[in-house]
Amino acid sequence: MCQLLGMNCNTPTDIVFSFEGFRRRAGLTDSHSDGFGIAFFEGKGVRIFRDNRPGHSSPIADCVKQYNIKSLNVIAHIRKATQGEVNIENTHPFIREIWGENWVFAHNGNLTDLPDMSESFCQPIGSTDSETAFCYMAEQLKNRFRKKPTEQEIFTAIQDITAELADKGTFNFILSNGEWMIAHCSTNLHYLTRQAPFGKARRIDDDGVIDFRDHTKEGDKVTIIATFPLTKDEVWTKMEHGGFVLFKEGDKIAEVIGTPKQLPDDGTLGCAQAA
Amino acid sequence: MCQLLGMNCNTPTDIVFSFEGFRRRAGLTDSHSDGFGIAFFEGKGVRIFRDNRPGHSSPIADCVKQYNIKSLNVIAHIRKATQGEVNIENTHPFIREIWGENWVFAHNGNLTDLPDMSESFCQPIGSTDSETAFCYMAEQLKNRFRKKPTEQEIFTAIQDITAELADKGTFNFILSNGEWMIAHCSTNLHYLTRQAPFGKARRIDDDGVIDFRDHTKEGDKVTIIATFPLTKDEVWTKMEHGGFVLFKEGDKIAEVIGTPKQLPDDGTLGCAQAA
Repeated sequence: MCQLLGMNCNTPTDIVFSFEGFRRRAGLTDSHSDGFGIAFFEGKGVRIFRDNRPGHSSPIADCVKQYNIKSLNVIAHIRKATQGEVNIENTHPFIREIWGENWVFAHNGNLTDLPDMSESFCQPIGSTDSETAFCYMAEQLKNRFRKKPTEQEIFTAIQDITAELADKGTFNFILSNGEWMIAHCSTNLHYLTRQAPFGKARRIDDDGVIDFRDHTKEGDKVTIIATFPLTKDEVWTKMEHGGFVLFKEGDKIAEVIGTPKQLPDDGTLGCAQAA
Repeated sequence: MCQLLGMNCNTPTDIVFSFEGFRRRAGLTDSHSDGFGIAFFEGKGVRIFRDNRPGHSSPIADCVKQYNIKSLNVIAHIRKATQGEVNIENTHPFIREIWGENWVFAHNGNLTDLPDMSESFCQPIGSTDSETAFCYMAEQLKNRFRKKPTEQEIFTAIQDITAELADKGTFNFILSNGEWMIAHCSTNLHYLTRQAPFGKARRIDDDGVIDFRDHTKEGDKVTIIATFPLTKDEVWTKMEHGGFVLFKEGDKIAEVIGTPKQLPDDGTLGCAQAA
């Protein structure tokens, strides 16, 4: 299946330290080699880089590292294909315009028997379950609200729509409109918030070390969300099955705590089995 | 305003020769320095690179040059802002999903009094007239046809919708769904098709020379569309005011010939005055 990485902060931050560990899982420390993508919000705009080559060796990923883009909201994804060919249109994250905003979505899991979207206003371009689910979400949201509702209404609507898809399979996702970031855990999703006092961290995947004191100022808040923890000496919070978290400016501003993880009916655990 | 560049071919082709001349107009040989963007179709997917820095000096544009991406359909744009801030969300080309395809659109000109799209299904994200016009087009197309109609029906519908916007100002555009490319001329748009026997070409902007015999094979067809010609020793066809051309696999497969150029009511000529 795949792994997810998200970042939500209150000050423009570069994600290179996390991304460099994460992309090693795309062929070196793990087998998520069927393409990668990363989307950086910049205001209401998005810079998105995708490649159908493995993230660890992609020249596009090298380009991302080189330009050191700072952003308040970033979503990245490394793919291990379950449904859909390995090509650009099937590479996460997916983007759609909702209420005049870019919405960026990445999924880990496997969904079956999704609604037919072939005549809807918002149709999938590729052949993944993930993009179809995202189109379903976009269509439902636009049909419920003609104009952008409040954050709380959005958070509630996302929970409702996710519940409609809950029996379709494993559905871990990260979603952002450039202001906030919503994480939903079906099987595996972890997060942590870095804030003062800042310290050092060591990457799990290659022992790379950073001292955040060299890169931060008092008041900075940076939340990282990942399928599995990226560092070995920080405390990651494991989300529960069915949990939702809404982050804004690095803070957790709303939460629905799930229940201890249950095996979905089909017996798969999404990326859990591959890790 | 801006300048447009499009490429439509029957074999995956790299656009570096044309793009290298074109991007010099973004600050060196001309003043279109308010950002640039370039979108490469790859199957139904799109690789898109945008920067709010000038195309001639953007590291993202260097990255595009370096990776030598080959594609059947490419649309690029260098911006001289008229409406909307200089930022990523206002940077062409714009993308929307229509009938399960990526549609890519770039505009040169200036439109006023466009329809209010603030409660429509397809809303603009940035503040340009160009994106609003493209959203209007997308909304109209989706409302007319629930599923993708024939190419001829699309070509006719695009002409109808463009006619509805004709009195709003200058509206040169290039549009592609990855299969075909449509060019519409309001004031300035030129094209040429390269095919056997291939020869040499010299760029207008920096005298760079290429011998296409070193890069092509018998049967290749590559159509280049640009606001103004990019080479000095090839014959470019100047489109007329109100003209439409539909290209597919490098061939012109349908055309509406316009009338000799007329000044729009507001007296502006789009990029013509800046060239």
